[in-house]
Amino acid sequence: MTALSAGATIGILGGGQLGRMLASAAAQLGFDVSIYCPESDCPAARVAAHQTLGAYDDHQAVLQWAQTCDVVTYEFENVPVEAAQALIQAGIDVRPGAKPLEVSQDRYVEKSFLQNCDIATAGFATVDTAADIAEPITRFGGQGILKTRRDGYDGKGQARLEAGDDFEAAHKSLGHAPCILEAMVPVVCEISVIIARAANGHSICYDVPRNEHVNGILRRSSVPANIDADIADRACSAAKSLADALDYIGVLALEFFVLEDGALLANEFAPRVHNSGHWTPEACATGQFEQHIRAVAGWPLGDVTRYHDVEMANLLGEEALAPPTELLESAVLTLYGKRDAKPGRKMGHVVKRMS
Amino acid sequence: MTALSAGATIGILGGGQLGRMLASAAAQLGFDVSIYCPESDCPAARVAAHQTLGAYDDHQAVLQWAQTCDVVTYEFENVPVEAAQALIQAGIDVRPGAKPLEVSQDRYVEKSFLQNCDIATAGFATVDTAADIAEPITRFGGQGILKTRRDGYDGKGQARLEAGDDFEAAHKSLGHAPCILEAMVPVVCEISVIIARAANGHSICYDVPRNEHVNGILRRSSVPANIDADIADRACSAAKSLADALDYIGVLALEFFVLEDGALLANEFAPRVHNSGHWTPEACATGQFEQHIRAVAGWPLGDVTRYHDVEMANLLGEEALAPPTELLESAVLTLYGKRDAKPGRKMGHVVKRMS
Repeated sequence: MTALSAGATIGILGGGQLGRMLASAAAQLGFDVSIYCPESDCPAARVAAHQTLGAYDDHQAVLQWAQTCDVVTYEFENVPVEAAQALIQAGIDVRPGAKPLEVSQDRYVEKSFLQNCDIATAGFATVDTAADIAEPITRFGGQGILKTRRDGYDGKGQARLEAGDDFEAAHKSLGHAPCILEAMVPVVCEISVIIARAANGHSICYDVPRNEHVNGILRRSSVPANIDADIADRACSAAKSLADALDYIGVLALEFFVLEDGALLANEFAPRVHNSGHWTPEACATGQFEQHIRAVAGWPLGDVTRYHDVEMANLLGEEALAPPTELLESAVLTLYGKRDAKPGRKMGHVVKRMS
Repeated sequence: MTALSAGATIGILGGGQLGRMLASAAAQLGFDVSIYCPESDCPAARVAAHQTLGAYDDHQAVLQWAQTCDVVTYEFENVPVEAAQALIQAGIDVRPGAKPLEVSQDRYVEKSFLQNCDIATAGFATVDTAADIAEPITRFGGQGILKTRRDGYDGKGQARLEAGDDFEAAHKSLGHAPCILEAMVPVVCEISVIIARAANGHSICYDVPRNEHVNGILRRSSVPANIDADIADRACSAAKSLADALDYIGVLALEFFVLEDGALLANEFAPRVHNSGHWTPEACATGQFEQHIRAVAGWPLGDVTRYHDVEMANLLGEEALAPPTELLESAVLTLYGKRDAKPGRKMGHVVKRMS
């Protein structure tokens, strides 16, 4: 695929807030955006030139839509791998491809892939039945987290276990789904790398944010992360190995646990723009959304120089309904246009420039 | 009108690039945008939730559309005054109102209004027939610019005259339209004030840019303008007088000529976001497009702190078709999504951060 000209149409699978922010960034570069998703009145469609309603597993409908686009990307990692593969087989340019979906959709495959890239993770073991838990939990020091291999996000699909717990009840609470047991590790802090990789293989990392989760949901990302430069360097070079191994085109996020001794354990990656990078448009020469669009369009990546120290906080549920006046005056507010402020739902975020 | 909540619909009369950038800024704040304009496939509609096609002077259609919006604004100054008045009479909130349209659409009314606000302008005189030119051109030192009172933009509808020229031919070249003759003044540089005024009367000015025009079209705005602080202060306080006199809500731009002795002569104002403020989103805490939306929505104005010295250059006609790689890597590019790169047409702009 040659570089797209302004006026070309970028197709996005998915209609959530990431699609919305990608669509706005694409429009700023002069592209038209076409959204494919099953929900009418979704956040992304309201800022895009076109929308097609359809199921992700309706390969015929997805293909028909994709043929109206000059390139296709996705804004969430649970796009069916088969749908992406069907598009690719039909000659559609899908960026960043089907492989990143295949790897990231299954925690076991994902962690194995990371290890094959020489990226350390916490210990893990597959769990098909509750009987598979006893051996690894002992090996992991008597505790672990049971996670469904698929479809978990924002802390959903997880159960914390200790030796002696009722493993069968825990596995039942996750619907007896195929799981992995992960070792618990003594974490000093969590960080993530937002990396962009261009079609020509050139990649570039943003400054590393420090992330705070509450109940499994990202609450806050701060930059600088106040970690040793050496830790940040190792995190970035791991992210680069991963992006290269996936022959990735676009923006990818790799999350890490930082241990007391400075060791890094990769947690998971997202084959897309990432919540922990939402501060980049306000703090950097080029934000992550524009960067993803540039990569997908075959354009050169933009400068990631960071101009500000920042703190990004998510607005969950009703927090978004009435942002206080002092916040409106001093911070950059982004609201996602979601109609229903369910508790815990990501409704928007604010970025505060600290310098 | 009370402050709008996120999810409300902001109606914009006009579908060009200013509407497009306003629509994107509104979406970032969680608003839905509805565009009313006569052109399908216009730049703004492609980033807005809704579009209604119709003529501006079809009051019935405009009203029907406006009733689907929570507030109505406009992105260009040639919206028929009568259409705005009809909306207001029907109880629609139109911000910044009908008066700014009425004043800015007629150069004679505009300059008279400026003078009534104690804002100095170059000498001017009305011209209904060519016979009206001889007296003022002598008074203005033997030269002047003949401009149509209405519908001129980007240097169109103008003719430069000297004593002894064929005045009738000049007036004929402007279609014998009602005109004004303006005195030529020895200009050191041109500047503009981008001012935002909130519903509560609070107003705030951006740092003043220096503007370069070529053939009547803005080519470049630079900030800082490298003028005395006193000149900038006087320009801002004039803009504040104007905004107050118009009981303005939103962003307004007032252009000035700076003379050798530091005197300021107002040229014209635009009752809308302005090309010479296109650098604000990349350089300031809050950009002019978001600022206009905040004002129109009844929200508090945002911080206008400027973080960068910048240069904004317009991309005209084919300049936008293939921006050079070094520009793509180092500057912020905005393309308007116009289909047809006619010579001289504003297709996009670039903002270069110099510090």
